[in-house]
Amino acid sequence: MGFMDDVIDRLCEPGSYESVYHSPKRHAPMPSVEVLTEVVSRLRAVLFPGYFGHSEVEAESMRYHIGTNLDKIRRLLTDQINRGKCFVCVAENRDCTKCEDEAEETCRAFIESLPELRRLLVTDVMAAYEGDPAAVGPGETIFCYPSILAVTNYRIANRLHTLGVPLIPRIITEMAHSATGIDIHPGATIGEHFFIDHGTGTVIGETCVIGRKVRLYQGVTLGAKSFPKGDDGKLIKGIPRHPVVEDGVVVYSGATILGRVTIGKDAVIGGNVWLTRDVPAGTRVLQTPAGEE
Amino acid sequence: MGFMDDVIDRLCEPGSYESVYHSPKRHAPMPSVEVLTEVVSRLRAVLFPGYFGHSEVEAESMRYHIGTNLDKIRRLLTDQINRGKCFVCVAENRDCTKCEDEAEETCRAFIESLPELRRLLVTDVMAAYEGDPAAVGPGETIFCYPSILAVTNYRIANRLHTLGVPLIPRIITEMAHSATGIDIHPGATIGEHFFIDHGTGTVIGETCVIGRKVRLYQGVTLGAKSFPKGDDGKLIKGIPRHPVVEDGVVVYSGATILGRVTIGKDAVIGGNVWLTRDVPAGTRVLQTPAGEE
Amino acid sequence: MGFMDDVIDRLCEPGSYESVYHSPKRHAPMPSVEVLTEVVSRLRAVLFPGYFGHSEVEAESMRYHIGTNLDKIRRLLTDQINRGKCFVCVAENRDCTKCEDEAEETCRAFIESLPELRRLLVTDVMAAYEGDPAAVGPGETIFCYPSILAVTNYRIANRLHTLGVPLIPRIITEMAHSATGIDIHPGATIGEHFFIDHGTGTVIGETCVIGRKVRLYQGVTLGAKSFPKGDDGKLIKGIPRHPVVEDGVVVYSGATILGRVTIGKDAVIGGNVWLTRDVPAGTRVLQTPAGEE
Amino acid sequence: MGFMDDVIDRLCEPGSYESVYHSPKRHAPMPSVEVLTEVVSRLRAVLFPGYFGHSEVEAESMRYHIGTNLDKIRRLLTDQINRGKCFVCVAENRDCTKCEDEAEETCRAFIESLPELRRLLVTDVMAAYEGDPAAVGPGETIFCYPSILAVTNYRIANRLHTLGVPLIPRIITEMAHSATGIDIHPGATIGEHFFIDHGTGTVIGETCVIGRKVRLYQGVTLGAKSFPKGDDGKLIKGIPRHPVVEDGVVVYSGATILGRVTIGKDAVIGGNVWLTRDVPAGTRVLQTPAGEE
Amino acid sequence: MGFMDDVIDRLCEPGSYESVYHSPKRHAPMPSVEVLTEVVSRLRAVLFPGYFGHSEVEAESMRYHIGTNLDKIRRLLTDQINRGKCFVCVAENRDCTKCEDEAEETCRAFIESLPELRRLLVTDVMAAYEGDPAAVGPGETIFCYPSILAVTNYRIANRLHTLGVPLIPRIITEMAHSATGIDIHPGATIGEHFFIDHGTGTVIGETCVIGRKVRLYQGVTLGAKSFPKGDDGKLIKGIPRHPVVEDGVVVYSGATILGRVTIGKDAVIGGNVWLTRDVPAGTRVLQTPAGEE
Amino acid sequence: MGFMDDVIDRLCEPGSYESVYHSPKRHAPMPSVEVLTEVVSRLRAVLFPGYFGHSEVEAESMRYHIGTNLDKIRRLLTDQINRGKCFVCVAENRDCTKCEDEAEETCRAFIESLPELRRLLVTDVMAAYEGDPAAVGPGETIFCYPSILAVTNYRIANRLHTLGVPLIPRIITEMAHSATGIDIHPGATIGEHFFIDHGTGTVIGETCVIGRKVRLYQGVTLGAKSFPKGDDGKLIKGIPRHPVVEDGVVVYSGATILGRVTIGKDAVIGGNVWLTRDVPAGTRVLQTPAGEE
Repeated sequence: MGFMDDVIDRLCEPGSYESVYHSPKRHAPMPSVEVLTEVVSRLRAVLFPGYFGHSEVEAESMRYHIGTNLDKIRRLLTDQINRGKCFVCVAENRDCTKCEDEAEETCRAFIESLPELRRLLVTDVMAAYEGDPAAVGPGETIFCYPSILAVTNYRIANRLHTLGVPLIPRIITEMAHSATGIDIHPGATIGEHFFIDHGTGTVIGETCVIGRKVRLYQGVTLGAKSFPKGDDGKLIKGIPRHPVVEDGVVVYSGATILGRVTIGKDAVIGGNVWLTRDVPAGTRVLQTPAGEE
Repeated sequence: MGFMDDVIDRLCEPGSYESVYHSPKRHAPMPSVEVLTEVVSRLRAVLFPGYFGHSEVEAESMRYHIGTNLDKIRRLLTDQINRGKCFVCVAENRDCTKCEDEAEETCRAFIESLPELRRLLVTDVMAAYEGDPAAVGPGETIFCYPSILAVTNYRIANRLHTLGVPLIPRIITEMAHSATGIDIHPGATIGEHFFIDHGTGTVIGETCVIGRKVRLYQGVTLGAKSFPKGDDGKLIKGIPRHPVVEDGVVVYSGATILGRVTIGKDAVIGGNVWLTRDVPAGTRVLQTPAGEE
Repeated sequence: MGFMDDVIDRLCEPGSYESVYHSPKRHAPMPSVEVLTEVVSRLRAVLFPGYFGHSEVEAESMRYHIGTNLDKIRRLLTDQINRGKCFVCVAENRDCTKCEDEAEETCRAFIESLPELRRLLVTDVMAAYEGDPAAVGPGETIFCYPSILAVTNYRIANRLHTLGVPLIPRIITEMAHSATGIDIHPGATIGEHFFIDHGTGTVIGETCVIGRKVRLYQGVTLGAKSFPKGDDGKLIKGIPRHPVVEDGVVVYSGATILGRVTIGKDAVIGGNVWLTRDVPAGTRVLQTPAGEE
Repeated sequence: MGFMDDVIDRLCEPGSYESVYHSPKRHAPMPSVEVLTEVVSRLRAVLFPGYFGHSEVEAESMRYHIGTNLDKIRRLLTDQINRGKCFVCVAENRDCTKCEDEAEETCRAFIESLPELRRLLVTDVMAAYEGDPAAVGPGETIFCYPSILAVTNYRIANRLHTLGVPLIPRIITEMAHSATGIDIHPGATIGEHFFIDHGTGTVIGETCVIGRKVRLYQGVTLGAKSFPKGDDGKLIKGIPRHPVVEDGVVVYSGATILGRVTIGKDAVIGGNVWLTRDVPAGTRVLQTPAGEE
Repeated sequence: MGFMDDVIDRLCEPGSYESVYHSPKRHAPMPSVEVLTEVVSRLRAVLFPGYFGHSEVEAESMRYHIGTNLDKIRRLLTDQINRGKCFVCVAENRDCTKCEDEAEETCRAFIESLPELRRLLVTDVMAAYEGDPAAVGPGETIFCYPSILAVTNYRIANRLHTLGVPLIPRIITEMAHSATGIDIHPGATIGEHFFIDHGTGTVIGETCVIGRKVRLYQGVTLGAKSFPKGDDGKLIKGIPRHPVVEDGVVVYSGATILGRVTIGKDAVIGGNVWLTRDVPAGTRVLQTPAGEE
Repeated sequence: MGFMDDVIDRLCEPGSYESVYHSPKRHAPMPSVEVLTEVVSRLRAVLFPGYFGHSEVEAESMRYHIGTNLDKIRRLLTDQINRGKCFVCVAENRDCTKCEDEAEETCRAFIESLPELRRLLVTDVMAAYEGDPAAVGPGETIFCYPSILAVTNYRIANRLHTLGVPLIPRIITEMAHSATGIDIHPGATIGEHFFIDHGTGTVIGETCVIGRKVRLYQGVTLGAKSFPKGDDGKLIKGIPRHPVVEDGVVVYSGATILGRVTIGKDAVIGGNVWLTRDVPAGTRVLQTPAGEE
């Protein structure tokens, strides 16, 4: 069994582990994917009562269920936000005496925005129902459609991102990415009444700005063309580098739109198109027809 | 803590929740994804004995294991079918005194079709094995291949869909969609000996008609071109709007075929192609070659 | 209830189940996806201490945690390797008296390679961090990025594949495929400092050879063009049939590269391109521009 | 394997199973010990907020937690009461069309009695705290003492028993019996401010009447002396056959008191005493001194 | 953290651990309480169909449920019997090449005795029902009474003990001991129609011989008086040292009967009695009356 | 549903809940029985390697398993000790700024005493093995005997009690009480080589002093006679009020010994005896013989 000791020795040499080891902080271990899964699942129960969580919520008892869920969300999420903040403090070797208090305030602000978050999601549900002739009713889209799952996670994550929370928003959108194949960066801006049909493989980058009533299909990329580097040779962060997609645009499956281009109002982008330039409002862009042998 | 009460109040206003709230019915709460997961997992154990479920089924004791699984499936699935029916009754404000009895009959019909369902899946396993030079044997495709997982869920869901069960079939295909990235609508018609290699991002729409010995790759879309609206401005449901793909066709990765077009027998559609027209039997369709800078 | 007995009878006829039934072997039932999930999760804890598993590993106690994890991995994985070997023996009707001893040796060789495996993964983490302007630090890529998850599973699976273990490697890469949409065959060869951005739908075939510092995007296919058959009409296995991608190449989203072609050093392949020919080093290949209606 | 079929045949002969087989009824399977465990655990959280269940209940959010727990208790317990009623209907071959409605009313009456039930339990907590010099505070008795656990289950079960619910009360007292070794029949009558120290082996029979401020120790039996049979040779049910224990009585460990005798106010019964007669108020009864060899 | 290393060093010194360390054997780790719990729970479902396990067993499907349970019991229990045998081999430093085959045979013999075991338990159920005026029906005693639970475990364990299985029988009776406070040694001999009312604290020793229609109460000890030692100063094992209790005897709560004495047919032993001599048939033995101060 | 609101209102009135409500403190909620169960289970794995926890610990890898367990125990137990301390601070309305640091020191002292704790338990295992002719080997007593379980929990709890930890020790002995029916107060003093046969119902009070090589049986009470009250009418805490039991004493089942009496060296107390006076060394005390009717 001596070989085991030898392997263990080598794996415990600082030279081996230093760049892939996370050293723990008191009261702030790594965020927990498991707890965040519970938080998102309770948020889903709050936002869509009767569909998720305790599935037999009557109007009379709704207050209790929503109240209990919010109380638990507040405790769990505050702690996770704190962990997210401390994770960055550790990475950047910063003092983090204020993280805990800030986390509490941030979580409060997040919870206060839930009614608005629901208002937005109601429009997304309508978009899904109106956009798919196969849907039996809005309820089916809430319960079954990957688009609603992914957009709910995105809207939660985006709100946290806007409130300055690190890491946690990304974990939340990655949960949806794994479950649906839809990858929306928490930093993207997306207007109401948004729908992604099927959705597998669709990517929406960090600095995208998407208007109202936009519809995407599976395999659509709204990405960056290139990443400018600064004088220090490092990527410059935060520069707008993803498309602006205006109200009413439809992008069909497999289309790739790269860079800070603008797709004008009500434009239609055909499937499998590769686009790196502006498209005027109302235009239809299609792929060159395929040839036959 | 007063802000919590305020948020709760706002989330409990009927104006906020009405279109995203599911009001419960006695004896028929929401279908349960968890129970349906168990049902599908027991069906997999019945269809592929020794591969799933209790993995040490000997020929002598097979009867007992299949019998027990079917007995549990019958109870669990009957209840879920009933919930699916009632879900629609609630949505459409219909009386549903007969749902429970109908659910029992439907479940019986479903179970009676399992031998035929297995016969079809045997051909799909052969298709997977013959279609992939990397496969060690048919067993590997049963145990590991996303295609077999997705097609099994589809064939189960399609049978339930054909029997008029709402909602439940969609939940079952979405389980496979989430696990494999393959999105097959339960309403699609798919012949025997069917295989999707890799599969992530492949979409097969509701009114597709796919023949025998068809092979698809990842990222293939068999979708609808547009959704005609009726005089009332609403989408007309049930119109054939997805492709017909005849026997022996191969569609390579990333191809998008839209609308009620027909891809003729043994045709080959190249990768990344965008197609909205009929293709004669035996033809090869390729993308225009990419240019070099 | 008589119909149940009838269905059970039909499902238990050898003619119905023979090609989809796995007959059990003493001491070697089917490999367990559940146990392999635990093995991979413990490997992740060993490779990235403090990020996964027991998340509060201090430098002083790291030895104990890594030692305990490796001891459990050794027992569990040896048994799974044995099951994988026996699965093939059963399929090929071979005697397998040596499987158990071989499994022990193979597992030992696998564990001895873990330090090197970690060295490779450190370079992959750097590639992810340097390649994405949205990443806060290397830690975020370890904890959140699908690329690191998929590449970790691939490097584990590839090592087992190289050691001649059947079935198990494929199960391990399929776990990552399901979670991330990234499908890397365990037989592929991939150099260090490798990154796949977003990743959903990307496929890397069995005989691919990928150099160092290669970056792929979502929806990229490195696939086979056709599968030559031997005189017996069966697919010939093991022939190099997937692309060679040299150092420094970037392939954008949705590109499809098929066959044993070579993409030369530092070449850039644009999104949605369909390629079946060699590309010289340093070249940029782009899709023909899409037309406007 | 043939012996298995033979054993199964014999176990499935009606002659073998008829008196130990429970035939199922639609919508009313056996009561579930698991669900009743959840019900009792939620009741404990309602009765002792902050000690059990969600352990961080603030005064401001208490309403929500209690409301949610009660709503779930109402659904779960109504269903279990119904099952208990139907269990008897099946056993006695009675029609049970009203069970479901009755169960709902009974559950309502039970819930309405919870404030009174808490009032009683507050006195029991005080009795435990005052009776044990080792107790740090009342909180320790709530959280740790078998007496509080057993008496809580008894008071819940007794209320259900009084409301005419069969079977369920016994299941609830048996849960406490298993956990604490204290066996209180749900039919017993017990006044406020009741405490059993240590408690293992203490038995309180069905027709016992216990006053206020009574204290028992471990191994005390308040049992029946004999069971009179009716003309039909069967035990006559419901006859008072257990002791009456008046206010302020103390019974030390291992004492056995049998039959419908009365232990008068403030009497003290010594350890290991065997008693089958009335004891006047204020008396002390001790065992004959043990001899020495 | 240095103190941890020091403590670990001391705990890993052979002098510290040698007499409390179990060294593992290949293919035969410690028996698993968890697995044995499952085995006993499946046996309960086989013996009392419809009461335990899958609670909705109809006569038509009973064969399947019993068959599946027996098939799983056979595999699991064979392995546990093997572990029990090897545990002794390790303790006694014996070769154990035959353990595995013997375990299979023993398990077969055990399973073949299940119909007889059920026949006995039917009489125990009747004894419980007839002996307790509070019982609603035999079903309540099956589902709720500690006596049935403890006697079922005992009859299972006794059968295994008779078949020469070490360790496992004791684990099975200890499960019941923990749940009910009833401690029956697997080696005791107990006739049919046996009932223990309440039961907490009752102990039945290894060489007890109990006749038919015997009834015990809680806190009864049927124990050994002294343990004769051999010339080597060690306890002599296997000598009859516990009471013989003939048909129809009743022993009331807290009675202690020690040594190889015989309690004659239909004798009644009163509560709290201490007995170390024979009692003639038909006699009533009572405690000397307690005095009053 | 209005009655629900009414019940909730009444349960939320401070007058109703004030004496049974635990108000939470930041970073110090109620101790968790679940976590303490894990701690004790890991301690058992450390103390008896190979019997509990990971059951295949080889001498070569023992260090890793013990190290990992101790590291987790240290974290989990430190937190629980802190919660125990804060629980008292809340109850007594004290400031508790130092609890966290003290908890860390206390936990360290506890861990440092584990080698001594194991030394003691080795003697207890020998006592169990030597005291029971039915035991196959010491290993059987470790794995199966309630005495070893209860005494292990007691020795852990006693060490924590000695270190001044409130509440937690009681929770740990109550776990054993519930599982075995043996109720040992953490404050009792018990010498090495201690054994309780069968054990159900045995009670050992807070100020007991028990010597070496003492053996007890089931149902033995070592209790207090009366609780003297101070001038304020409250029970005086901490006065020696339980028996002193000297080396080599045996107490048979059901005996009750009350008050600060001394049972001299090697004395034997017969079953069911009631004792409130000193017993000289070497004496045998037996119950007055029972009469016959």
